[in-house]
Amino acid sequence: MFLKNCWYVAAWSDEVTDSLFARTLLDTPILLYRDSAGQVVALDDRCCHRTAPLSLGRREGDCVRCMYHGMKFDPSGRCVEIPMQETIPPQTRVRAYPVVERSRWIWIWMGDPERADPALLPDHHWLDDPAWRSLSGYMLHQANYLQVADNLCDFSHFSFVHPETVGGSVAYAKSQPRIERLDNGVRITRGLDNDEPAPFVKKLRPEWKAVDRWNNYEFLVPGVLLMDSGSVPVGRGGAGGSREGALQFRGCQAITPETARTTHYFFAQPHNFGIEDAEVTRKIHQVLIDAFEEDRHIISGQTRMLAFDPDFRMVPLGVDAALSHFRWVMNKRIREEAEA
Amino acid sequence: MFLKNCWYVAAWSDEVTDSLFARTLLDTPILLYRDSAGQVVALDDRCCHRTAPLSLGRREGDCVRCMYHGMKFDPSGRCVEIPMQETIPPQTRVRAYPVVERSRWIWIWMGDPERADPALLPDHHWLDDPAWRSLSGYMLHQANYLQVADNLCDFSHFSFVHPETVGGSVAYAKSQPRIERLDNGVRITRGLDNDEPAPFVKKLRPEWKAVDRWNNYEFLVPGVLLMDSGSVPVGRGGAGGSREGALQFRGCQAITPETARTTHYFFAQPHNFGIEDAEVTRKIHQVLIDAFEEDRHIISGQTRMLAFDPDFRMVPLGVDAALSHFRWVMNKRIREEAEA
Amino acid sequence: MFLKNCWYVAAWSDEVTDSLFARTLLDTPILLYRDSAGQVVALDDRCCHRTAPLSLGRREGDCVRCMYHGMKFDPSGRCVEIPMQETIPPQTRVRAYPVVERSRWIWIWMGDPERADPALLPDHHWLDDPAWRSLSGYMLHQANYLQVADNLCDFSHFSFVHPETVGGSVAYAKSQPRIERLDNGVRITRGLDNDEPAPFVKKLRPEWKAVDRWNNYEFLVPGVLLMDSGSVPVGRGGAGGSREGALQFRGCQAITPETARTTHYFFAQPHNFGIEDAEVTRKIHQVLIDAFEEDRHIISGQTRMLAFDPDFRMVPLGVDAALSHFRWVMNKRIREEAEA
Repeated sequence: MFLKNCWYVAAWSDEVTDSLFARTLLDTPILLYRDSAGQVVALDDRCCHRTAPLSLGRREGDCVRCMYHGMKFDPSGRCVEIPMQETIPPQTRVRAYPVVERSRWIWIWMGDPERADPALLPDHHWLDDPAWRSLSGYMLHQANYLQVADNLCDFSHFSFVHPETVGGSVAYAKSQPRIERLDNGVRITRGLDNDEPAPFVKKLRPEWKAVDRWNNYEFLVPGVLLMDSGSVPVGRGGAGGSREGALQFRGCQAITPETARTTHYFFAQPHNFGIEDAEVTRKIHQVLIDAFEEDRHIISGQTRMLAFDPDFRMVPLGVDAALSHFRWVMNKRIREEAEA
Repeated sequence: MFLKNCWYVAAWSDEVTDSLFARTLLDTPILLYRDSAGQVVALDDRCCHRTAPLSLGRREGDCVRCMYHGMKFDPSGRCVEIPMQETIPPQTRVRAYPVVERSRWIWIWMGDPERADPALLPDHHWLDDPAWRSLSGYMLHQANYLQVADNLCDFSHFSFVHPETVGGSVAYAKSQPRIERLDNGVRITRGLDNDEPAPFVKKLRPEWKAVDRWNNYEFLVPGVLLMDSGSVPVGRGGAGGSREGALQFRGCQAITPETARTTHYFFAQPHNFGIEDAEVTRKIHQVLIDAFEEDRHIISGQTRMLAFDPDFRMVPLGVDAALSHFRWVMNKRIREEAEA
Repeated sequence: MFLKNCWYVAAWSDEVTDSLFARTLLDTPILLYRDSAGQVVALDDRCCHRTAPLSLGRREGDCVRCMYHGMKFDPSGRCVEIPMQETIPPQTRVRAYPVVERSRWIWIWMGDPERADPALLPDHHWLDDPAWRSLSGYMLHQANYLQVADNLCDFSHFSFVHPETVGGSVAYAKSQPRIERLDNGVRITRGLDNDEPAPFVKKLRPEWKAVDRWNNYEFLVPGVLLMDSGSVPVGRGGAGGSREGALQFRGCQAITPETARTTHYFFAQPHNFGIEDAEVTRKIHQVLIDAFEEDRHIISGQTRMLAFDPDFRMVPLGVDAALSHFRWVMNKRIREEAEA
């Protein structure tokens, strides 16, 4: 069961064009396309007549025609033409979903449309802020979204999963983050002064021998990570002090369940240095892909083990504080929704 | 659950030879072969001893020997040899099924053999009538047989699924067929005068600018379509008038469940023009294959969507009259069989 | 459900090295590796913290470190380091399994470790007796282990499944074995004097025209076959008489469930002739592989048929005496374990 009344990232802006784009979200096949004004339309990707996928259909103006029996639906999901009959029964419609496009992400609301308030959207303006540059990343996890959320709530895995990419010293794993429990997620403040630079930092700044580094972020319902991270030569004060000359990032990541066993993962790593050089952006993006493939490998391993014993009782550790709170918040919200 | 007491097409005549041929029908693995007199034998493809497939066995005379422990069965399914012992317990047998071979189709009766009356077979003599020519078509649908039946009960999809093959104008979709509810299926009479020729008709007769066309057929339990279809230059009277110079067909199609999720589809398109020219027959057959691949694509899409929500309530339209009646007949017959 | 309190073959000795080796046994993922003294360690291949596979981890001394969050476990399964905290909760451990390595086989005890008595191990010293030579065979069956056990309990299938490899005349299928019911399995004594040599014997000894042959073996819980087999020129007395000049073998085979639907199969065919010639050993091993692929083919066919009707009632024959007793013993032992 998924939380419905919240905004989910459905796609990167450039994934959705005039063409018909199919993606399953929350176990629900969705059709996405842009109308002639460029507005994104989101409809159930299933004709209400005989369940043929509308994504196998045809754009006609702002509408989409099912290419099984020719039913035509407008962007609101209303059927506007049944070729074989004059009258259109009122229940002849597919569900349309509220959509908001903002800063390169297309957000969708799968719950009660009355409650789809754009004010609830988190701020991820770094994705299209001219002072920052990033590429669009996408990956499909073969895992339940909460396993991916667990991973994102606890960066102590950096030293073990990512020793050659974004991780580094075991000291960083041992650094104790500050965990703030939020109503809609968790805020994590993590930093270490005078640490060995992470491998990717060594490549970008080979002359740096030691750094102050930080990963400060919120991880919010239903799975959005917004992060201030970076490294600066040691002694410049790190997270709490000056960031002059720092390598700074504003990571934006979002997970959206595809099904109970698979998860969409959208990610970007905006940086504000070297932004005139596309090669810098490309290299930073590649580090992310490499690191997230490492995550995917270990998370798929977890999935494989859980399949043998889905009820296995994990041994909780102190390091699980953030992920436990996030799971608690999600469970609470899902339960409340079920009761309402 | 499938209807048992009826004839199903098991194979094309030329699929079954002296060799052992395995095909699953109604979720039941069946072994087919010809005895020395050329008679088709149909047995459960499962040795009664330890369930090894008889189709991995060996023909010996008119019998088949299981190549696990050497049990030998005659065409009636009776065990006639157990190499390791003299006595043969009477329950040592596999089930044999009544079979009738007629006009290139091998029919099988999976229910009570007492009721297997060849008089119940429909007439499809066009498959081997010397005045008509056709090739043998076969396809496996990744869908429940009723989805394929739906497709065959309603040709309004021609204009949307088959615009480049057997379909054509939207006007044809809008033409109102006459639906006659039969005890064992449905009779459909559909035609349109002064219509644009279907794409394949344009290729066969490029000089024809407008035609009277028709698709008149019965779709009978458990899924047999027998059709009189064709096109004739406009004004010659169409279905009700003269067919002089017409392109005429006697489509013979049958669907047989392989499992609840897969369906055998046998098809041919006998024609009575240009029958001395094998290339004409080949071209007509290719049109059918192309068109039925189009059907398979959209039907697989349906299957994919139904998997997300098997209980989805479809919105019924007037155009569903024939398929609704066919489903009603099938359900009724299956229910009666279960109660008997 | 599997029998737990017994020894299973987990691997060939040379499969397990300093590296981390993952194998699923009895539906349980197991990690195997050797410590610095060469002793085999067997642990649950699942970190107790967040279920990541330990086999994706790293050997560190005699320990293994989970490469998700860095938990380190010693060969007893005790957690000896949690990088992110000082105290280690006592429940932080993975299960370790008793292991005995003997004569090239690594045995594992998946039940109550208190009862893991090496004295219960059967004698298979031929695998490393200097007077005998063999290669290590492994195969994964796509079948429940009892289907493989059935196959090994009844060699009447030799004449039908293996006519070109280890089988031969139908007379051998008809020879009546002596079946002795044991508390922990079955003893089978089977031989035929003046029989046609098996195909592989013909290749090894083309000059032999007729032989006395025998297959005498025990098949023991949970699936260990230990066999004295061979052929000798006719008239030398066969199983009961002189074996001078015989081709003699001491087959060692073991099946271990991977899951309920898949089965590990370990096999070797020690021989005591031509042991100085590696090519002889290689040829004998190849015959085994060829023959067991034939078994795998027919057993997979069984599996395929059983999937259609798992409750199919097989017709029992006299030839099933040994397999019926073995299944009865296994069921009894499993039931007793469940009740205890």
